[in-house]
Amino acid sequence: MRLALNHATTKRWPLEQAVAACAGAGLAGIGLWREEVSAYGLEATAKLVRDAGVPVTSLCRGGFFGAEDWFDDNRRAIDEAAALGAPTLVLVSGGLPPGSRDVDAARAHVGAAVGALVPHAQAAGVRLAIEPLHPMFCSDRCVVSTLAQALDLAEPYPVEAVGVVVDTYHLWWDDQVWAQIARAGTAGRIACFQVADWITPLPEGVLLGRGLPGTGCIPLRRFREAVDAAGYDGPVEVEVFHADVWDRPGGEVFAEMVEGYRAHVEG
Amino acid sequence: MRLALNHATTKRWPLEQAVAACAGAGLAGIGLWREEVSAYGLEATAKLVRDAGVPVTSLCRGGFFGAEDWFDDNRRAIDEAAALGAPTLVLVSGGLPPGSRDVDAARAHVGAAVGALVPHAQAAGVRLAIEPLHPMFCSDRCVVSTLAQALDLAEPYPVEAVGVVVDTYHLWWDDQVWAQIARAGTAGRIACFQVADWITPLPEGVLLGRGLPGTGCIPLRRFREAVDAAGYDGPVEVEVFHADVWDRPGGEVFAEMVEGYRAHVEG
Repeated sequence: MRLALNHATTKRWPLEQAVAACAGAGLAGIGLWREEVSAYGLEATAKLVRDAGVPVTSLCRGGFFGAEDWFDDNRRAIDEAAALGAPTLVLVSGGLPPGSRDVDAARAHVGAAVGALVPHAQAAGVRLAIEPLHPMFCSDRCVVSTLAQALDLAEPYPVEAVGVVVDTYHLWWDDQVWAQIARAGTAGRIACFQVADWITPLPEGVLLGRGLPGTGCIPLRRFREAVDAAGYDGPVEVEVFHADVWDRPGGEVFAEMVEGYRAHVEG
Repeated sequence: MRLALNHATTKRWPLEQAVAACAGAGLAGIGLWREEVSAYGLEATAKLVRDAGVPVTSLCRGGFFGAEDWFDDNRRAIDEAAALGAPTLVLVSGGLPPGSRDVDAARAHVGAAVGALVPHAQAAGVRLAIEPLHPMFCSDRCVVSTLAQALDLAEPYPVEAVGVVVDTYHLWWDDQVWAQIARAGTAGRIACFQVADWITPLPEGVLLGRGLPGTGCIPLRRFREAVDAAGYDGPVEVEVFHADVWDRPGGEVFAEMVEGYRAHVEG
């Protein structure tokens, strides 16, 4: 099965239980988050997934290149990914600097920052994955808003060092996305494929408004077929942020995720 | 002065006072909304603005082409615009049909629906203006998400019958917007230019989260210069939806709008 659990989907489910569920269901792996890894302990987490035979499909997240310590912090994130055996570090690039109205400059800074991290990423054997986030996050979370922008930013750097994330939640509205997925495939840049569904109304702050696969309006199967056709054969991470989903028992959400994946992504 | 008040900015300010303020300050006009016009009375509103010498710059809004009665309702909206002397009817095209995951089909339907309205619009001397809304509204309010899409949809129809709206709030994140504004200008399609600023956090439902000019991160002057360079010399409507702004006295918001316009749009 290509399905992987991104741990953010079951954020409050203890890591041992999430990893055990992935192993038990024969999932392709688990996507982890730095906060939870840090709380559990980096070495302990590495041992946990190794003993369970569950690959870490990605580590979330590096980026936030507006922060003062972005360079050191992202180097640490790369090291953590390497320690976990994660092939990919997902980069959420950060929003506009305070008071800025210059999104072009912020995007250019992302490109330069990614470039500055390439040598360390290559040395560690970790691939940086630039994630375009939905345009509603452009000012405060990620100035990279489309797959085309992410690919433009990745282009100067070696394919094995810098890729992009294709996340259905962020990209579904974009009529250019199908051509850009094909472009990403041809360039060998698809480092990560994440799935969540679009539901409304959006909550305050719009961060925790995602739906489990099949609950919303995104043609998830079309996305999966598009990345397949572009030559991507890696894991399919389900990554859902929603307060109501987080309030439910992890095992219940996990089962629903597997079901939704089979019905709406795989099938 | 090219500034026009879109009445939605001061939604609870009685129409007489809003119109009087526009006249007193020498604004280019006022953008009106069908609900408020209907509550005041269509003929009464037409007389009010005529007597005050305040042009109606646009009527908001037609569209919502997923509704069962869209054809008749939009014909009525065209008639209302004509009765008010408004040159432009702003179209918010509507979201996905219930249960649909096919945004391409919904966009194609918008194009066909606009085409079906062209004869009535031409007969009435009202221009239909397709408004791209921010992608966060794609599923539930407007499947037209970029200026490029709006121009593609307008293209088959006569320029004098179908134009587009350039609204800073909806388009600022898009790195293609400058080229598309130039394209819109070359094609003679800019029917309406609206200004609001982007502020965060977004509120629940994301509709009422706009900022008065200068309070957010959008390069408003760059937009005004871009539409100018594209040959647009019409009014600049400030259209802000925000619960806190609506709670304040209309006159106070009006003064702040004029100030923000002078400092951040005009100057």
